[in-house]
Amino acid sequence: MSRTELTVLKIGGSVITEKNGELAARTAEIDRLAGEIRMANVKSLIAVHGGGSFGHPTAQKYGIKDGLKEDSQKLGFSETHHVMTVLNGLVLDCLIWHGVPAVSVTPSSCIYTESGRIKHFDDSSVKALLKMGFIPVLYGDAVLDLKQGFTILSGDQLVSSLGTQFNAERIVVGVDVDGLYNADPKVEKAAQVFKHLTLKELRELQSKLSTPTSRDVTGGMFGKVMELLPAVEQGIPVIIVNALVPGNISQALEGKHVEGTLITKE
Amino acid sequence: MSRTELTVLKIGGSVITEKNGELAARTAEIDRLAGEIRMANVKSLIAVHGGGSFGHPTAQKYGIKDGLKEDSQKLGFSETHHVMTVLNGLVLDCLIWHGVPAVSVTPSSCIYTESGRIKHFDDSSVKALLKMGFIPVLYGDAVLDLKQGFTILSGDQLVSSLGTQFNAERIVVGVDVDGLYNADPKVEKAAQVFKHLTLKELRELQSKLSTPTSRDVTGGMFGKVMELLPAVEQGIPVIIVNALVPGNISQALEGKHVEGTLITKE
Repeated sequence: MSRTELTVLKIGGSVITEKNGELAARTAEIDRLAGEIRMANVKSLIAVHGGGSFGHPTAQKYGIKDGLKEDSQKLGFSETHHVMTVLNGLVLDCLIWHGVPAVSVTPSSCIYTESGRIKHFDDSSVKALLKMGFIPVLYGDAVLDLKQGFTILSGDQLVSSLGTQFNAERIVVGVDVDGLYNADPKVEKAAQVFKHLTLKELRELQSKLSTPTSRDVTGGMFGKVMELLPAVEQGIPVIIVNALVPGNISQALEGKHVEGTLITKE
Repeated sequence: MSRTELTVLKIGGSVITEKNGELAARTAEIDRLAGEIRMANVKSLIAVHGGGSFGHPTAQKYGIKDGLKEDSQKLGFSETHHVMTVLNGLVLDCLIWHGVPAVSVTPSSCIYTESGRIKHFDDSSVKALLKMGFIPVLYGDAVLDLKQGFTILSGDQLVSSLGTQFNAERIVVGVDVDGLYNADPKVEKAAQVFKHLTLKELRELQSKLSTPTSRDVTGGMFGKVMELLPAVEQGIPVIIVNALVPGNISQALEGKHVEGTLITKE
């Protein structure tokens, strides 16, 4: 399958929301990132953002990820989806204000999962938007699930699915640290960034970093990276960069070298 | 096909937004209506709202209904869809605050049209939400169109499609006047409400009221009613009531008699 000119961009929830505080958006960061996306002027782009302090606390409060167990969770599902649409609205506000022809696509309206994994994705809207030169914007969302009623679909699973489905040229992942570290950089001062990892090296790391008995020592980043494995296996390079550093996202989108972690098949 | 216990509720954009003024929501009305929906506690409900001063001025400014003719319209499409998601967000805010397990379903994410008519509707999300006891909330939206790039999908076409597809027990339409009049009640003081119309009477009216050479003398309401014809033909009664009168929507949802226009097949 030949590569397309499509880039899939993921912006982590931790970049666009305050970690401490519920429903606290970093509107200045969102605005700057919208400007960077405008500036990069990529030919074909899908953007996905995470939930940060919008999605996570609400989803956790009602146990949405583990599915419907009691009726009282239903309003929690409504609320979790709703707060994600609010965060998405702030992102779209900034993109449109910057002149980016972005159109939000609501995951829960066209995707359902089975035991937490995407089972059905009516991608006709994403496909048509891309063809017309629009930038579809999706997000981690509370979605319906065939087995457990509902669950949380992470932005990372969505990115991997979109990347492989549309055979992207590359995936750019913007996070709030400098890449994938060998330890949690927010705790370990000596933690070091992996500059380049192959699929083989990543798999070797997997057995070291995330055995069932040990917690994810990279501060949660490794689990997110593992979601992107199907895309890497398909030959799509993944570049993880610090989206809080001005210029990083626009340069990564333009294909310029940016400090971070590059993950390739070989 | 036997009737289900499903009610489809349409709330006109003129009810929940100020006509004079762009992007001006009547939040007090939205809040009251959310409370009425809560109070009615209908077993199975789909709600649809119009765009009013959110959707219409933006759509008109960029000529979205007539399709993509020049590149500059693209940002207009983005904007039109975005302002509709903002209005929908205000509606969902109120519904959830009132304890209604409502979940917004984004029309443009699961529907596309051909020459302005629904061609594809992935209704798996609406179906699953209903089955789980959620209230799916949809709205008039800027959608993609196979023939003309994009267009506006009216809330009325959506209501008719949902009503027939799910074989609703009835359709309740909330507007800002007392029903369907024989003249524009906002202009003609002597205008009279039709209390009951059959399909045959409606068709007779059609030739009188909306010949190609005459404008819609009912103030635009007749065109909206004609959108609901497929549902009426399928035997689904349509009740048009004044949603600005407190109690009307909750009573109509409960199946109680409310002054307005009843349209039935026979």
